[in-house]
Amino acid sequence: MDYNELALKMHEENRGKVAVRSKVTVETREDLSTAYTPGVAEPCRKIRDCKEEVYRYTAKGNLVAVVSDGTAVLGLGDIGPEAAMPVMEGKAILFKEFADIDAFPICLDTKDTEEIIKTVKYLAPTFGGINLEDISAPRCFEIERRLKEELDIPVFHDDQHGTAIVVAAGLINALKFVGKKMEDAKVVINGAGSAGISICKLLLQFGVKDAVLVDQKGALCPGEAWMNDAQKEMAEKTNKDRQTGDLAEIMKGKDVFIGVSAPNIVTSDMVASMVQDPVVFAMANPVPEIMPEEAKKGGAKVVATGRSDFPNQINNVLVFPGIFRGAMDARASQITEDMKMAAARAIAGIITEEELNEEYIIPGVFDKRVCSAVADAVKAESRK
Amino acid sequence: MDYNELALKMHEENRGKVAVRSKVTVETREDLSTAYTPGVAEPCRKIRDCKEEVYRYTAKGNLVAVVSDGTAVLGLGDIGPEAAMPVMEGKAILFKEFADIDAFPICLDTKDTEEIIKTVKYLAPTFGGINLEDISAPRCFEIERRLKEELDIPVFHDDQHGTAIVVAAGLINALKFVGKKMEDAKVVINGAGSAGISICKLLLQFGVKDAVLVDQKGALCPGEAWMNDAQKEMAEKTNKDRQTGDLAEIMKGKDVFIGVSAPNIVTSDMVASMVQDPVVFAMANPVPEIMPEEAKKGGAKVVATGRSDFPNQINNVLVFPGIFRGAMDARASQITEDMKMAAARAIAGIITEEELNEEYIIPGVFDKRVCSAVADAVKAESRK
Repeated sequence: MDYNELALKMHEENRGKVAVRSKVTVETREDLSTAYTPGVAEPCRKIRDCKEEVYRYTAKGNLVAVVSDGTAVLGLGDIGPEAAMPVMEGKAILFKEFADIDAFPICLDTKDTEEIIKTVKYLAPTFGGINLEDISAPRCFEIERRLKEELDIPVFHDDQHGTAIVVAAGLINALKFVGKKMEDAKVVINGAGSAGISICKLLLQFGVKDAVLVDQKGALCPGEAWMNDAQKEMAEKTNKDRQTGDLAEIMKGKDVFIGVSAPNIVTSDMVASMVQDPVVFAMANPVPEIMPEEAKKGGAKVVATGRSDFPNQINNVLVFPGIFRGAMDARASQITEDMKMAAARAIAGIITEEELNEEYIIPGVFDKRVCSAVADAVKAESRK
Repeated sequence: MDYNELALKMHEENRGKVAVRSKVTVETREDLSTAYTPGVAEPCRKIRDCKEEVYRYTAKGNLVAVVSDGTAVLGLGDIGPEAAMPVMEGKAILFKEFADIDAFPICLDTKDTEEIIKTVKYLAPTFGGINLEDISAPRCFEIERRLKEELDIPVFHDDQHGTAIVVAAGLINALKFVGKKMEDAKVVINGAGSAGISICKLLLQFGVKDAVLVDQKGALCPGEAWMNDAQKEMAEKTNKDRQTGDLAEIMKGKDVFIGVSAPNIVTSDMVASMVQDPVVFAMANPVPEIMPEEAKKGGAKVVATGRSDFPNQINNVLVFPGIFRGAMDARASQITEDMKMAAARAIAGIITEEELNEEYIIPGVFDKRVCSAVADAVKAESRK
């Protein structure tokens, strides 16, 4: 099946994917006088007198902006805000399909960190949440940090945290299946960009004590000159044995390989150099770091990828709909670290101990139980 | 009927009025691979390679931003961006209902002219058109002028031009009914804010030679110290007899009164001081400058208001859906003066000479013929 051709046809025939729908009918003069003037003045006055009432009388509480500047779109890189639209529209309709959230694409014609921050702040009155998407590192870190500080609605950079949460969920179950603990697992993460760093941070919170991040130039280790600020910070928190060297070197003796990097850079020999029953999450897309059958040849006990045509698909769509549904329903002003951990546990918890097997460590993307389980866990966490 | 209570109930029950709809289904892995990754990369690449393709593969061509800073909302004034949401959502659903345009409310948390201009420019990649709404004068003039210059999609401040176009349409038919010509009509416009000035400019283009604008301090006349820049400019182009004085003074001997001002400030005696068979458009909302029965007592031949409970309702909803439909279908980069005149003529032209009477100078707001007539006229004008 050629998805490229199918996608072009589908996008052209429908002129994109998002549309606006009216929740009320406007067919009579009375409708017009209620939905618009003069009646509309009354909800306006209520909100003028008490700003919180905007959640009662407008769509704000269910609106999410899917914001991108088009600088890190899929594997395509900096393709500009117009070319990012198909992805942001896609994200918006997934919000709708999976969580009944009204998400709207916002593709910005600026790459300037301060301008993006200001613009999103100016837009905030309309929205109940902000999903940052496909903004390149390191700007994405500062943009998210500042917006979280300066806005009172949830702000979530899905490329970082959505990925981290679903990886953590998969790893909870994979380690359970191979009979290991987070505390004891030696983990190597290949790809020290925004996703890899975010995955690493969340795994540390989950108790991982031995993690090494690897980038194209080798392992992140204090003193390496090529590291950027975010990588330097991570080097201090990881790599307790101060390992240096390339990926093949670092993978030796590890329990878990997590790849958010490039196609075909791991061999079955490299997997064979890990400990017994290793866990391999090869999530480069569309071509993983190692194909599942090759990883198995090297002795991998559990293999996950980002692809829908292999078992154990690690896909953010298991996370962001439920995270936002829960945070917005709870009227949370932030998505906290505890909420992220609760979300990961909720996804992992969908699969019972009896069901758990090497080809079923993570629920399928269309498993309807996931979104509500995540939303409930996030809401419960928010109440604490 | 208490529209305030009805409106509160309706807004609360529906949590506002706009929602997002997906134009495609996402129910299978194949759907997901076509609407999202990996298939979505292909339309992204097409747009990256040729920016114009954004109109082919995304929703941009049918998306309009309804942008406000909440500074001049209805008669309520500067109530802030949150409190403006019900109006902007209302506008958005009218776009949908009348022209099948997907309009989205954007309420900005800044009143700074330059910041609003920059923000709208940053948002432009997502949208096929920009409808400015309820932004206070004089900032609205500069914002619209600059955005028209600097963007290549239609930008339209409806409070100015929508009002001007529907007034011109009504006046074309009203003058036809009383057997007068634009060239000969003596016109007084009360209210020299953005709407009044815009009406005046469009009527001058339609051939009116004798117009006087009046504001709270009297007639706009060169030399008056209290006028702002926009008013000074208009004073030079109007009031050829250099009339000074208050509204009662200026109305004497005029053919047409157009009010976009305040309730109950015109008496039947003032109408009686006009020439025979005067035309009175009293559009203050919800209470007009003079009630229709009072105007008739003073001898008014044709009376129009902004209200739905009297004949001849002058309502922007006759204009903005069709103007945007036409301009966007034509992929026009601007809404020109000629397009506005074509729109006014198209609205007036809905009513045949036989149908025309003192209670039917303007089509009803639910007349389905209006939007397509306006859109067709705008498209035809755009092709010239």
